[in-house]
This record gives sequence, structure tokens and C-alpha cells, in this order.
Amino acid sequence: MSAADEMVGGEDRPWGEVTPEAARRLLVAAVEAFAERGYHATTTRDIAGRAGMSPAALYIHYKTKEELLHRISRIGHDKALEILETAADARGTAAERLAGAVRSFVRWHAGHHMTARVVQYELDALGEEHRTEIVGLRRRSDAAVRRILNDGVAAGEFDVPDVPGTTLAVLSLCIDVARWFNAQGRRTPDEVGELYADLVLRMVGAQGG
Amino acid sequence: MSAADEMVGGEDRPWGEVTPEAARRLLVAAVEAFAERGYHATTTRDIAGRAGMSPAALYIHYKTKEELLHRISRIGHDKALEILETAADARGTAAERLAGAVRSFVRWHAGHHMTARVVQYELDALGEEHRTEIVGLRRRSDAAVRRILNDGVAAGEFDVPDVPGTTLAVLSLCIDVARWFNAQGRRTPDEVGELYADLVLRMVGAQGG
Repeated sequence: MSAADEMVGGEDRPWGEVTPEAARRLLVAAVEAFAERGYHATTTRDIAGRAGMSPAALYIHYKTKEELLHRISRIGHDKALEILETAADARGTAAERLAGAVRSFVRWHAGHHMTARVVQYELDALGEEHRTEIVGLRRRSDAAVRRILNDGVAAGEFDVPDVPGTTLAVLSLCIDVARWFNAQGRRTPDEVGELYADLVLRMVGAQGG
Repeated sequence: MSAADEMVGGEDRPWGEVTPEAARRLLVAAVEAFAERGYHATTTRDIAGRAGMSPAALYIHYKTKEELLHRISRIGHDKALEILETAADARGTAAERLAGAVRSFVRWHAGHHMTARVVQYELDALGEEHRTEIVGLRRRSDAAVRRILNDGVAAGEFDVPDVPGTTLAVLSLCIDVARWFNAQGRRTPDEVGELYADLVLRMVGAQGG
């Protein structure tokens, strides 16, 4: 699967929220190059070449390589936060909300594993201001999951001795899907999501989970 | 923490199994450079410079950059396999063996997170022959954990509907510690190991876990 096949913002149009078309193509090329060779080994010339464009054409849309990384990271983190806050705000028991969060977060990391690797492994390459912004989004993602766990404990549904540590473990388990997931492998993103929802309900000691 | 502070083979001498001393220093420099900038952005000249040596001196010990990566990957994977097979072969109930495996595997990934990141994220940069060798070691690590899970199910200690999937999730959870662990953070490697042993026993439905 190439980055062009990955769906980031919407479910239908890959990277469809990025306009104009040239800016979208450059972003897709950047994800592929960063995922294959790493951020530091990639030049803006490489990215322009992959997109079939000149370095000057790239410069119209992105002033620096870091701006491309920031754009990718921002879109990825916005999507992660949207998934987790939607699940946290949903109706239903804490167990249902937690299972929903895990299913959709896992599906995203499996279905967009190339983007997710760039988003997760190249954080240190962001400039200071951008890193601070992204860390803020990550804190809010963390808070959404922690809220579901706290609700479950308060309702007597969950048994969680260490809510911050368990929140971290749940997110970590889902994020690492991007490292090992193989689109040619035995399990579909949906199947991994289903398995992981069950494992996470066990981690929080969900009654009847 | 620098790679020189990380302990790989033994617990006392960092990278102590690598001799002579110049070869050891070059390996430490390579881990740091790969972890900071990525394999593809690092040159053998960078590595020699970090070790305070000339490119010609590096060449005496390692013919290529890939040979350095392979050496790091091999040592890391050998250690991971040793940890997991020792736990699988230990006396005690399946729950005790699984908790032991998770505790020491997590401690290793937290205490050697820089090495572990290189080992886990740069697999694609290995040459074909080396990658095949490393994949074989990973299969054996996987088999060690699967054996504990199967033993627990056979003994009626564990309730695991999907043993291969749960094995993968247990290893994934532990491996991802290398991504988020921060030596300046709130939790020590031992504390993370303890938390994760408890969470994994819950994942397998251990009786009295």
C-alpha cells in the first residue's frame, strides 16, 4: 500500500482535505519518502521528484521540509484526537465507549500505517513550536482515553489500579499496530481492532467484557 | 542516556561482549547516530567521527554501514530471545513465567530504548540475508511467548481465545515501551515492568492474576 492509498482525513478521498491538488500530491510523496528513508535522509528535491514536480513548484506550497512534516503530523494527530474524543463522547457504557475507541484507533493505525509511522517516529524532527503544538494534541488524546477509564471505575464497571499507566498502555498497544501491521498479512484492520478491543476490556477488568 | 550507558549483553559492561575496544566504541557511536538521524541519513564517516576515529580505522572493523546495523540488530535480537526463552523455560506456573517474561522484556526495552528503537525500526535497511537471519530470531522469540500461553491454556490457568493474536499483542505492548520510555520520566523500568506484567496477566484471563 502506498501513501496515496491511505486515507487520512475523510474515509473516501485520500488526503482529500489537502488542497490544492499539487499540495496534496506533495504530501503523499513526503509520507512515502519519510516512511522509506527517514526524515533526515530525505530532501525536498526527493519529494518534488516523487511527485513529478520541480523543487521550485514544491516551494510554492511548502517553504521547508519541516513544514511538510508538520502538516503530516498535524493531520495525523487531529485525526487521532477526533477518533478518541468521538468515542469518549459517545453514548453507552464505559466498556462500549472503550471498545469503540480501541476499534477505530487500531483501524486507523493499521489502515494508515505508513502515515502513522512518520507521525509517531519523527516527532523529534519537528521544530520547537510545532512540537509543542503536537504535544498538546497528544495530551488531549491521552485525556480522552483517561476519561473513559475514570468513568468506568466510577461506575464500578472497571477495576483499574493505575489509570494513567493503563491509559498509556492502551494507547501504546494501539499505536504499535503501525509498526507491525502488514497489509498482505493474515489479519484485516477490522480483525485486529476486534481482537484488541477484547484484550483492552480484559486489561481494565471490565465486568462481562 | 547515551548508547554508551545502555547495557546490552551483560548487565555490567555496556556492549561489553563487543571486542576489541575500538569495535565496541564504533558500535556505540553507530547506535547513537542511527537513533538520532536514522540509518539512511548516517554515513560511516559520521560514525567514525563520533567515535573519535578515522573512516579508515572504522573500515578495519566493519566493511559497511550495513554490517554495523546487522551487528547491533543481532546483539539486540539475541538478547531479546535469551530473555524470553529463559522465562519460558523457568520453573513455576504459566502465570509466573509470563509475568517474568514481561517484566524482563519491558525492563530491557526501557533500559535500552535507544538500541531497541534502532533494532525495531531499521529492519528494512538490513540486507536480504541478514534480514532472513533476524526474522528467524524473531520467530523464535514469538514461539517462546506462545509456548507459555499454550501451557497456561492447557493447564486451565489462562483463558485465551486467540493465542497467536494475543502473543503478538503481548510482544507489541512490550516493544513499544522503547518508543515512549523517557529516562527522565516518572516511571522506572522496574515500575513499568511491574505494571505491564499485571496488565498482561489480565489480557490472558489469568486466574488470581
